Amino acid sequence: MIQVVAKATVKEEMKESYLEKAFELIESTRNEEGCLSYELFQDIKDPGIFTFIEKWEDMDHLERHFNTEHFRRIVPLLKDMRLSSDLNIYSLVK
Amino acid sequence: MIQVVAKATVKEEMKESYLEKAFELIESTRNEEGCLSYELFQDIKDPGIFTFIEKWEDMDHLERHFNTEHFRRIVPLLKDMRLSSDLNIYSLVK
Repeated sequence: MIQVVAKATVKEEMKESYLEKAFELIESTRNEEGCLSYELFQDIKDPGIFTFIEKWEDMDHLERHFNTEHFRRIVPLLKDMRLSSDLNIYSLVK
Repeated sequence: MIQVVAKATVKEEMKESYLEKAFELIESTRNEEGCLSYELFQDIKDPGIFTFIEKWEDMDHLERHFNTEHFRRIVPLLKDMRLSSDLNIYSLVK
């Protein structure tokens, strides 16, 4: 199992558009084979921080996700609405 | 539901001791009321990065966790073995 944490600080004036595009990405991604969960969270202290927390069966399925039409179309739009971002791909220790 | 992501870069020479203490923390924490999941992950590209990803029923249970004997005893030991750390507490958007 692979866990992804993709954290972003979103431009204040872009929050609404960001969420609209993020929701579209979520709907499409949850239908992908190998996607065990794909959720969007907001930091409770800093409401400008939005983080995707994702579980994938394995790296092959995650790599297939990076090449889907919805990922390649929507993720560049999200990137333009971010001030900063941080991506980690993890394997389970315990 | 509350999601916690606690990311740390661990000192190279401390990795083994860090995992030993982290495993003790995991065992005790998983028995706490309100703890839905509590897992430790390692970054697949940077093996010095270890991240706890946790699900809690609500903030009350998370705050009770911060005051348990095991948290107050073990977390300061873990902090001494880290080069840096980053904690986010999240609520679910979607």
